[in-house]
Amino acid sequence: MAGSSFGTVFRVTTWGESHGPGLGAVLDGVPAGLPLTEEMIQRQLDRRRPGQSRYATKRKESDQVHILSGVFEGRTTGTSLSLAIWNEDQHSRDYANVQDTYRPGHADFTYDQKYGFRDYRGGGRSSGRETAARVAAGAVAEEILKSIGVQVTAYTRSIGPVESPVTDLAEAQNNPLCMPDAKAAAEAAAFLETRMAERDSAGGVIECVVTGLPTGIGDPVFEKLDARLGKAIFSIGAVKGVEIGDGFAVSSSRGSADNDGFRPEGSAIVPSSNHAGGILGGISDAAPIILRAAIKPTPSIFQPQATVHRDGTPTELVLRGRHDPVIVPRAVVVVESMTAITLVDSLFLNMSARMDRFEAFYHQN
Amino acid sequence: MAGSSFGTVFRVTTWGESHGPGLGAVLDGVPAGLPLTEEMIQRQLDRRRPGQSRYATKRKESDQVHILSGVFEGRTTGTSLSLAIWNEDQHSRDYANVQDTYRPGHADFTYDQKYGFRDYRGGGRSSGRETAARVAAGAVAEEILKSIGVQVTAYTRSIGPVESPVTDLAEAQNNPLCMPDAKAAAEAAAFLETRMAERDSAGGVIECVVTGLPTGIGDPVFEKLDARLGKAIFSIGAVKGVEIGDGFAVSSSRGSADNDGFRPEGSAIVPSSNHAGGILGGISDAAPIILRAAIKPTPSIFQPQATVHRDGTPTELVLRGRHDPVIVPRAVVVVESMTAITLVDSLFLNMSARMDRFEAFYHQN
Amino acid sequence: MAGSSFGTVFRVTTWGESHGPGLGAVLDGVPAGLPLTEEMIQRQLDRRRPGQSRYATKRKESDQVHILSGVFEGRTTGTSLSLAIWNEDQHSRDYANVQDTYRPGHADFTYDQKYGFRDYRGGGRSSGRETAARVAAGAVAEEILKSIGVQVTAYTRSIGPVESPVTDLAEAQNNPLCMPDAKAAAEAAAFLETRMAERDSAGGVIECVVTGLPTGIGDPVFEKLDARLGKAIFSIGAVKGVEIGDGFAVSSSRGSADNDGFRPEGSAIVPSSNHAGGILGGISDAAPIILRAAIKPTPSIFQPQATVHRDGTPTELVLRGRHDPVIVPRAVVVVESMTAITLVDSLFLNMSARMDRFEAFYHQN
Amino acid sequence: MAGSSFGTVFRVTTWGESHGPGLGAVLDGVPAGLPLTEEMIQRQLDRRRPGQSRYATKRKESDQVHILSGVFEGRTTGTSLSLAIWNEDQHSRDYANVQDTYRPGHADFTYDQKYGFRDYRGGGRSSGRETAARVAAGAVAEEILKSIGVQVTAYTRSIGPVESPVTDLAEAQNNPLCMPDAKAAAEAAAFLETRMAERDSAGGVIECVVTGLPTGIGDPVFEKLDARLGKAIFSIGAVKGVEIGDGFAVSSSRGSADNDGFRPEGSAIVPSSNHAGGILGGISDAAPIILRAAIKPTPSIFQPQATVHRDGTPTELVLRGRHDPVIVPRAVVVVESMTAITLVDSLFLNMSARMDRFEAFYHQN
Repeated sequence: MAGSSFGTVFRVTTWGESHGPGLGAVLDGVPAGLPLTEEMIQRQLDRRRPGQSRYATKRKESDQVHILSGVFEGRTTGTSLSLAIWNEDQHSRDYANVQDTYRPGHADFTYDQKYGFRDYRGGGRSSGRETAARVAAGAVAEEILKSIGVQVTAYTRSIGPVESPVTDLAEAQNNPLCMPDAKAAAEAAAFLETRMAERDSAGGVIECVVTGLPTGIGDPVFEKLDARLGKAIFSIGAVKGVEIGDGFAVSSSRGSADNDGFRPEGSAIVPSSNHAGGILGGISDAAPIILRAAIKPTPSIFQPQATVHRDGTPTELVLRGRHDPVIVPRAVVVVESMTAITLVDSLFLNMSARMDRFEAFYHQN
Repeated sequence: MAGSSFGTVFRVTTWGESHGPGLGAVLDGVPAGLPLTEEMIQRQLDRRRPGQSRYATKRKESDQVHILSGVFEGRTTGTSLSLAIWNEDQHSRDYANVQDTYRPGHADFTYDQKYGFRDYRGGGRSSGRETAARVAAGAVAEEILKSIGVQVTAYTRSIGPVESPVTDLAEAQNNPLCMPDAKAAAEAAAFLETRMAERDSAGGVIECVVTGLPTGIGDPVFEKLDARLGKAIFSIGAVKGVEIGDGFAVSSSRGSADNDGFRPEGSAIVPSSNHAGGILGGISDAAPIILRAAIKPTPSIFQPQATVHRDGTPTELVLRGRHDPVIVPRAVVVVESMTAITLVDSLFLNMSARMDRFEAFYHQN
Repeated sequence: MAGSSFGTVFRVTTWGESHGPGLGAVLDGVPAGLPLTEEMIQRQLDRRRPGQSRYATKRKESDQVHILSGVFEGRTTGTSLSLAIWNEDQHSRDYANVQDTYRPGHADFTYDQKYGFRDYRGGGRSSGRETAARVAAGAVAEEILKSIGVQVTAYTRSIGPVESPVTDLAEAQNNPLCMPDAKAAAEAAAFLETRMAERDSAGGVIECVVTGLPTGIGDPVFEKLDARLGKAIFSIGAVKGVEIGDGFAVSSSRGSADNDGFRPEGSAIVPSSNHAGGILGGISDAAPIILRAAIKPTPSIFQPQATVHRDGTPTELVLRGRHDPVIVPRAVVVVESMTAITLVDSLFLNMSARMDRFEAFYHQN
Repeated sequence: MAGSSFGTVFRVTTWGESHGPGLGAVLDGVPAGLPLTEEMIQRQLDRRRPGQSRYATKRKESDQVHILSGVFEGRTTGTSLSLAIWNEDQHSRDYANVQDTYRPGHADFTYDQKYGFRDYRGGGRSSGRETAARVAAGAVAEEILKSIGVQVTAYTRSIGPVESPVTDLAEAQNNPLCMPDAKAAAEAAAFLETRMAERDSAGGVIECVVTGLPTGIGDPVFEKLDARLGKAIFSIGAVKGVEIGDGFAVSSSRGSADNDGFRPEGSAIVPSSNHAGGILGGISDAAPIILRAAIKPTPSIFQPQATVHRDGTPTELVLRGRHDPVIVPRAVVVVESMTAITLVDSLFLNMSARMDRFEAFYHQN
């Protein structure tokens, strides 16, 4: 089934495996006239590039993006935009120990169950490397959003037990753990050293905030903005939970505390608080959108693990190679990208919501 | 934009408002030959019907379903199945106080922002009553699932601070709070009495378990089974968080504890634990699927609330009428229904995943 | 599979059978604020209503439409619009001779092959009666189009050997054969009398013209406007051919004759001729859109026909009942409706084609 | 809007322009386990490759396909399959005369109207070169079809006034005009010489026949097999008409002549004639599918043509460069490819049409 596409009128289709020739994304529905260069996309790709800190895999990839179609004289043409990233560091190493053995926490078993066999080299299509294509696509989405003043910002909210306050969003770009607080980042780094010494791994929480989004975005019933965002974020491997606004905390709250009242602000109306996380009835209100994603610990650990061979024989697996002790920092830009992609599609879909705006659109163009 | 449809090859499209003539669902992609009667659907509808306990609105609705098309001589024909439920208790009451005032926690403000005006009678399309159509559709989905031994069961996991252990799934059908433990249900009832006395409301958590699902269901990348379920559950009004398996708890876990190993079971292979909640890499493994939804407190409370008129003037709103002090018990069957609908679509989509099965299918038919 | 829906952001989903309780359409993606009454829809439905001439079935149906949702205080709300038409004249006649026998030219055999059984009463879902729901939906689409000055007009171009010149579009509403020339209509009527006397039936050609469509509508590659229209028209039962502009005649033309040059018209640019039928590269140019559909002769004829029983035994079938000697006149409004539905969807999809218009849309709203 | 994708569960997404780095297709929903090599795809691509006869452009392109993802150890993996063809012969010629002038019969004007500007080099995205990606995708579709015995064969039925009888399907691979009759091919070649001497171009008709398709493929109402094929074929640039079976001839036929009766054939039932072209009620019967496409004359001709500058000023355009005098022969494999792609998708969608088959599928796997 066709699972490699996301979106309705702004649609991203991705391809590529961990150890094939490369990865890519085809973006369809990009409006014509957007100034776009490879450098604009590269900036976002560099945020998830491997080999940049001791908490990320040592795999050497420049992750250089190439625009193969859809841009002419520096602007998008309105037709499908093809982006490619060639793989460079495809170790010709021995996969014998994972070829016929199911790694716990990975998709080896389920791919074999679904497809009858699998590309066992580095996870194939189920590799986290797949997300590079999403980030390239997300970079284009963010350019579109910026043109109308929408800002999407994701950062690490916690790693293991270390929670970061949101002190300074700029700081999240400075430390390798992407935390918006330098002190918390240092604590998290220390915590990770311990985990690595234990040959174990850690999980965490990523938060994403959207400001400047017009009100009225999202649709009733099944295409609620939170439903679309929920799908987008859950489609990232390793995500096991998603919250909007107060999230799970609402379950023990009360109506009088959870309800956001309204107040005038200039000629506009805005919520007086933001427990809802910027979405009411599936549609954006004037408050920032806030979502969080729970990321599981890296499944690749350097301890012996009990599992089975393909034929069902119990065995013990010991992994070697290059693995991140924590997925969170490199997933931050992936969460941001999927959020941006979802918002662009939702903004486009909203353009035909009202007769008066439809009539004005065609009468003035 | 077309937000009233869900699913790709098993597709549910709903219509109807709280105070219009009725509600309905059109199910397209129902296979031919499923035995189906109105009674089968009615059983599920009765689980969310109002007026059944003191914790649910007193609105009088028999919620009787009518099959308008798609069934002939007791079996589905393969063509679109139309289900309708006529509204009976449309109070001709006075909406003056909500017509021009934005109720906190409701979609009044966002609908006005999106559409320029709204059907203010009882929430219109954004009313929880919309979910009746989902439950009717879900009942059909559950009949399809049962034919291959898949069982979907949702229940209340917590209301406010009262968490229920999963003692007895049958018990969840006996008490009005749908908790799988009689003692917890009694505690939760007592807790709700207090909240009601305070003219306030409560939230909670719904859990849903799926057993018997074949392995290999769900697709890589954007159509992961957890992504599809995430969208389905987040599309239910009042849901502010969704978890699969250990959910948010994974963020403070470690790889060695979170990874599920594998073991042989007869001639099959199964996970030796179930932290993942039955889904690995977006595809079902052999363990039960477990998901949880955080439900916010009923926004309609009987305390004065600060809000604004449509024109921005601050005002105080005092609601009257019939409102559930907690949404959770009536949303249980909605969570179950959306899960079932998602699974049927995913099972159908999986049928063309492998050449050998495709060839066998057409050679034997 | 879900085949009862059409369109991407303006989506029509239909249900209902010839002899069930009724038929209907759910329209999703109707913009908010469109003035809409049942009368507006009824006008179009009355154009295909049976029992109005001696060339149409005598079935007695008032085909009265009911709006079940999506309209409040005379205007569309932006949420799904449900329309229903209840069947009235469901003859409780004997279907014994068609229940187990395959009528030539009908879908009896193919439905049985696909689904294993079928609703044999009057064709069930494959009945031409299904198109009533399309016409109801098309009436809404035409209201949307009129708001920006787009006019869709279909009429009969030929019945059997009788071709009608396009003398007067208004005349097509006056004669029962929907021909835009009174003299041709009289000839066609005389021709039909002969066919009926022979217990046989006739086919014909329907033409549809669209004026006032903005340029730039339709998308490159697979969503060309002609491709979308082609699907729309071929989805009408009995259509065996579709042409745009000069259609099949282009195959024996030459470039110098077939090419439409361009010329200035005021400050605009327009094609100097219209061999292309208003679409170039899949996108509307400034000329009227012209399409034609070839309609097969009514398959229900009153002559004995050689066919088989369900079990394969050869047999001779003699039909009784009420059948149109020609489908064309009643299909005219169906072609018009499907064209209108396609155009509305395409107009909505075009709204995000350009960055400058996207930015203007969100900056001014 | 996202117009570069085709199909629901077998989905083809294409990218690339005439004079960019290359073109490609991403195929999603290819079942796992299909043996696939670049050579298999190349065979089909070579059928539309330029520079092979004096009736095709002299552009030098090897059109070598590269598999970038989705194949492992010679078999498809079930995940997205990426195919690329790099452009080689991008003449750095002068586009000054077409940059600001609208070529008659081309999409220059409509692209400018839609997008505000265009890639004017060789037609950009609207170039016929776009179809190379479709052919690569179609080659994969044909491999899937062959596995269950479905054969798709397209050939030239006419060029200008020269109609070819269907004498020998193999012959269509031998002559450069793809006609299934050597004598007709020679006549057509002579005819084309005259047209070329007149600096003019010719159109024609392509026919496509499908044998071995199971009965029951296609869906009622909007997803009829003929509707899906109609869209597929109309999405090919230069197609101005599509017919199924007797096509436009039905308009002057009569029911007694047009109806296909049924007869037993062994234990099966088959139509006794094939006026319908293998599709009844939108669903395949047991007869071969027959469709025809009308192809317009190549718009690029070497005569002066009256047109306008971008600013509206009238001008005369004289084209230079490399152009096919007739599009038909190179479009033959494109028609075949689009037919194959449509059939694979329809076959997959049919797998969930019946409960008994659904149950059997999951009980035996």
